Amino acid sequence: MTDKKLIGVDLGGTTIKFAILTEDGEIQQKWSIETNILSDGQFIIPDIIDSINHHIDMYDMTADQFDGIGLGSPGTINHEKGTIKGAYNLNWTNSVYPVRDIEKGTGLPVTIENDANVAALGERWQGAGNNANDVVFVTLGTGVGGGIIANGQLLQGQNGAAGEIGHVTVDPHGFMCTCGKRGCLETIASATGIVRVARDRASEYAGTSELKAMLDDGQDISAKDVFDLAKKDDDLAMIVADYVCDSLGFVLGNIANTLNPKYVVIGGGVSAAGDFLLNKVDKAMRKNEFATIKDSTELRLASLGNGAGVIGAASLIKVD
Amino acid sequence: MTDKKLIGVDLGGTTIKFAILTEDGEIQQKWSIETNILSDGQFIIPDIIDSINHHIDMYDMTADQFDGIGLGSPGTINHEKGTIKGAYNLNWTNSVYPVRDIEKGTGLPVTIENDANVAALGERWQGAGNNANDVVFVTLGTGVGGGIIANGQLLQGQNGAAGEIGHVTVDPHGFMCTCGKRGCLETIASATGIVRVARDRASEYAGTSELKAMLDDGQDISAKDVFDLAKKDDDLAMIVADYVCDSLGFVLGNIANTLNPKYVVIGGGVSAAGDFLLNKVDKAMRKNEFATIKDSTELRLASLGNGAGVIGAASLIKVD
Repeated sequence: MTDKKLIGVDLGGTTIKFAILTEDGEIQQKWSIETNILSDGQFIIPDIIDSINHHIDMYDMTADQFDGIGLGSPGTINHEKGTIKGAYNLNWTNSVYPVRDIEKGTGLPVTIENDANVAALGERWQGAGNNANDVVFVTLGTGVGGGIIANGQLLQGQNGAAGEIGHVTVDPHGFMCTCGKRGCLETIASATGIVRVARDRASEYAGTSELKAMLDDGQDISAKDVFDLAKKDDDLAMIVADYVCDSLGFVLGNIANTLNPKYVVIGGGVSAAGDFLLNKVDKAMRKNEFATIKDSTELRLASLGNGAGVIGAASLIKVD
Repeated sequence: MTDKKLIGVDLGGTTIKFAILTEDGEIQQKWSIETNILSDGQFIIPDIIDSINHHIDMYDMTADQFDGIGLGSPGTINHEKGTIKGAYNLNWTNSVYPVRDIEKGTGLPVTIENDANVAALGERWQGAGNNANDVVFVTLGTGVGGGIIANGQLLQGQNGAAGEIGHVTVDPHGFMCTCGKRGCLETIASATGIVRVARDRASEYAGTSELKAMLDDGQDISAKDVFDLAKKDDDLAMIVADYVCDSLGFVLGNIANTLNPKYVVIGGGVSAAGDFLLNKVDKAMRKNEFATIKDSTELRLASLGNGAGVIGAASLIKVD
């Protein structure tokens, strides 16, 4: 420990969140700005630089009081070059150079990482991961993402794709995924996937169900509606929730069989379904795990919510 | 590098293999002795000590010319205590203390590791893993085992069970496994699993097949028979081989989706089926992988055969 501070930046499609943290992970200041994605997102990096410099000034601090800046971003990170590609929701069509540019603009060292990995690091450090050496994190949002910490390190894989749990195949004959193959976990357990499963099951459902009535009525439904109705024992909603949780339990149980993490942590918007979701997934997961894993791997809900990103980003530059 | 030598020991149920290697992984001497499992396996560790001391003398060497001894063993390793439990094929019913005892008996530092992990390390270092940072190894023998190297490190997991690929669930309604749950990869793709699948499929098979005739005739068949007949286009054998390879491809493809290793390496007795097996598994695997993984993860056959154990064991004490 050096008593210096960390800056964590969580770059998203609508807002950019910032935080100043101690090396212990305590948030001392936080703020956010709107993400300006106009003109191919060319204002994003200058906006980040200005906002950081402005806040360092405002708090009467200087650059040498910081270890550096950690940045979580959508897209594919090239760690060697410090570039980001394919962050389509930021309108960045070409590679951008956040490490080079933010280092130049702030005078601080910058480390970047994929947003799902950063959330995994945040939950591991200060959230449900309890700082364990082996943590698998899955985030159920518009898509399904994830990050894996093993032997205390974030796994990258050969091409930076380690932890892309959303594209694990549940059913080779299942729904078509945006990735081009069928039956990915994301087609079932993301917010959009849950709605897709609901529509699919509704089309062949003949019983009494409020969810069925809503769909037949042409109403827009959300993943939250499905889980809220399932909690009230709506028959169709329960069928959907069972399939979603069984699929999650199958994938997470097999990841646990392969990696034997201490914690598997579920985050993202869908995890707001809380203990109802947790208990159903846990049951399905345990059915697919062998004894040693059942005894040593624990499923948990994420505890940091939206704050996981800035905390995980800050952890990228923490001096151990 | 220190120019010192490494000793690798591969402890198996019938033989104990030894090798003296350079720090570059070149085998300079190798020998083996029978495993004496009489009297609760109490002679095994003394035999290892005697054999090492004898050979160091015989080659006119001294203990200070070695970095140490790496030992691969069946059973569950407790790294903190240096003990092994549950190595039933060695008749060890209680914990044994190989680290303490072999260090005392030889004057050399000893590191131990599970046999499947040691084979994974061997293939990674000197075999098909090409010394890559991210390698998944699966061994198809009497059972199905494995080992995972990620970020250049062997993964252990919370309870030492990382890499136990044999108990990944393929089909929650499948065959009962010795581990107590259903549909484990081991029930399908181990040597015994392949025979089980053959018997199962034969019972409902009505066409013309030499494999079917052999089974109906009450002959003992092996996994090798199944693959040999499948290579000759035997109809039932092909059905069995397809199911085995599809199951392997499903599991290995999903592990690749999760970890994005550079290489997935198939070893063990069943891998003697060679390119026929490799090509079928590769096709099934790619069907289950998303684009980034297809582009960056490669399936390979193990190249060290029986030698993987001593080489991987020696790598445990290699000074990087």
